[in-house]
Amino acid sequence: MAANGTNGSNGASAAPNTSKFDPNFTQHVIDLMSPETKPRHRQILTSLIRHIHDFCREVELTQEEWVLGVNYINSLGQAYRKNRNETWRVCDILGIESLVDEINHKLVTPDGKAPTSSTILGPFWSPETPFRELGASVVQDMPPDGQLTYFHGVVRDVETGKGIPNAVFDMWQASTNGKYDTFDPEHQSRHNLRGKFRTDAEGRFYFYCLKPTEYAIDTSGPSAELLKIMGRHPYRPAHIHMMVTHDDYVGVTAQLYPRDDPYLDTDTACAVKPDLLLDFKPVQNEPKGAVLDCEYNVYLAPKKYKPDSKMLMLNANQDKF
Amino acid sequence: MAANGTNGSNGASAAPNTSKFDPNFTQHVIDLMSPETKPRHRQILTSLIRHIHDFCREVELTQEEWVLGVNYINSLGQAYRKNRNETWRVCDILGIESLVDEINHKLVTPDGKAPTSSTILGPFWSPETPFRELGASVVQDMPPDGQLTYFHGVVRDVETGKGIPNAVFDMWQASTNGKYDTFDPEHQSRHNLRGKFRTDAEGRFYFYCLKPTEYAIDTSGPSAELLKIMGRHPYRPAHIHMMVTHDDYVGVTAQLYPRDDPYLDTDTACAVKPDLLLDFKPVQNEPKGAVLDCEYNVYLAPKKYKPDSKMLMLNANQDKF
Repeated sequence: MAANGTNGSNGASAAPNTSKFDPNFTQHVIDLMSPETKPRHRQILTSLIRHIHDFCREVELTQEEWVLGVNYINSLGQAYRKNRNETWRVCDILGIESLVDEINHKLVTPDGKAPTSSTILGPFWSPETPFRELGASVVQDMPPDGQLTYFHGVVRDVETGKGIPNAVFDMWQASTNGKYDTFDPEHQSRHNLRGKFRTDAEGRFYFYCLKPTEYAIDTSGPSAELLKIMGRHPYRPAHIHMMVTHDDYVGVTAQLYPRDDPYLDTDTACAVKPDLLLDFKPVQNEPKGAVLDCEYNVYLAPKKYKPDSKMLMLNANQDKF
Repeated sequence: MAANGTNGSNGASAAPNTSKFDPNFTQHVIDLMSPETKPRHRQILTSLIRHIHDFCREVELTQEEWVLGVNYINSLGQAYRKNRNETWRVCDILGIESLVDEINHKLVTPDGKAPTSSTILGPFWSPETPFRELGASVVQDMPPDGQLTYFHGVVRDVETGKGIPNAVFDMWQASTNGKYDTFDPEHQSRHNLRGKFRTDAEGRFYFYCLKPTEYAIDTSGPSAELLKIMGRHPYRPAHIHMMVTHDDYVGVTAQLYPRDDPYLDTDTACAVKPDLLLDFKPVQNEPKGAVLDCEYNVYLAPKKYKPDSKMLMLNANQDKF
């Protein structure tokens, strides 16, 4: 039983969460957890219950709104299909994936040096991407409007500035129609626009890919209803995904965006950071026919600064770790 | 783009939500809402985004935990069936239905008088319950272990104390096996243990029902996983539901619990309030064979104190209002 009940104790207590509603109710619910509850479960559920309750009180949620919320949450799971995870999308729209990514990966060295920013993995990473030779092209199926790009850079130690040999630069990108290989079997062969490259003795990587194209996320499900309510467009800025790893360094997963993309400030997934911008420069008479050149250098922090660092390596439709 | 990025602005800003993480990110996500967003949507989403982000930062949610959460939310909708609403159950377990009920119904008159407390509707109300004559029994199918109870009281004006004629006392309860009529077709006929009664000229209502029995909520779905993690039992204290309405008064929906029930303090649905307790007294030679007598008086506030008051009249498996 939660409290002293019916007499409307609107009182003048200075305790947190005191309001015109029962000031003991939230703690009552938290205290229902047994002493055997695992400490991390207790910590997470305590914070979650407090914040959900505070939210309800703050906006004085009506019963109709609550039922709409219940139905909305049900609709997310009901829409779940292979290659369709609406709950994940809602997390992107509300900035949750991006925030959790920052919480897990933010790193600054003791003397203030920051490695390349992490940003969200997204749902399209593949654990099966093949290694390719340095200088190879990931473009197996050239779309008519594709702009072949020579992409190159160096993976460097953020402290010493030295190139890191044998780092793995894993990249993936959508084609000009906004689709990834596995979602577009009519136009793309398997592993099109995906590749893993191992840096050379100087830490260099180089390959051919496409200038990326912006695309809209799927707009047929409940996540799109949320975008509509918020008056937001469904576009992601154009981007190339990368996951850079090395045994002795803290890995980084990020997305790289053309600096002139119109959606940088309003990314549906709230995943743009200022050090992740690319400059595409026109070139002529490039040996393999590239029309653009793009250089991007990656900075990694030595593993000692985050020895327990883990990379999220998950396709959005894998249910388990 | 959220902020000033990679340089780890751990700074000393005094703004709320400042932390070792980007202090501008949450406001950035909120500001993505367009100027055309409806004010109530903006209010709710702003508060929701702030609280979810604060929750993530407060517990430093790991990516693994976030993915578990995404999968858990998906599992709720995936478990949705006729007569099974796991999201609703999770809201009960976390106290959300009970809190939202209080937010919508808490009422104290200017001179400090409180009408009978509201508590959660629960998923088992039926819009089709028949009216019965005063003095009738709702027990259509007597279970062998049922204790027939003469239940009676007066619906009164909380200010004047006078009985309110023509109020409707709508009641429903589970049988001794813990099941409601529609979920137990083998043992119960339709409308068993449900009835609407209209108060007489003095505001009295009286009928026969069963002493209620405690029961466990369904323990086969994801809501039961949550209970397990929290180390909580799945029991609801025994209760009789009531929904009392009258055109000139603010209606009340509540559950009434035997004062000696062992689960009052640990109700799975966090829905017990101290003015909703019942005393069952043994009787002998009752004309219709009742073995218990129970008196409960209901106090309603005149509608002028909450003219926009609405009752939630919804079965948990109706999708829409």
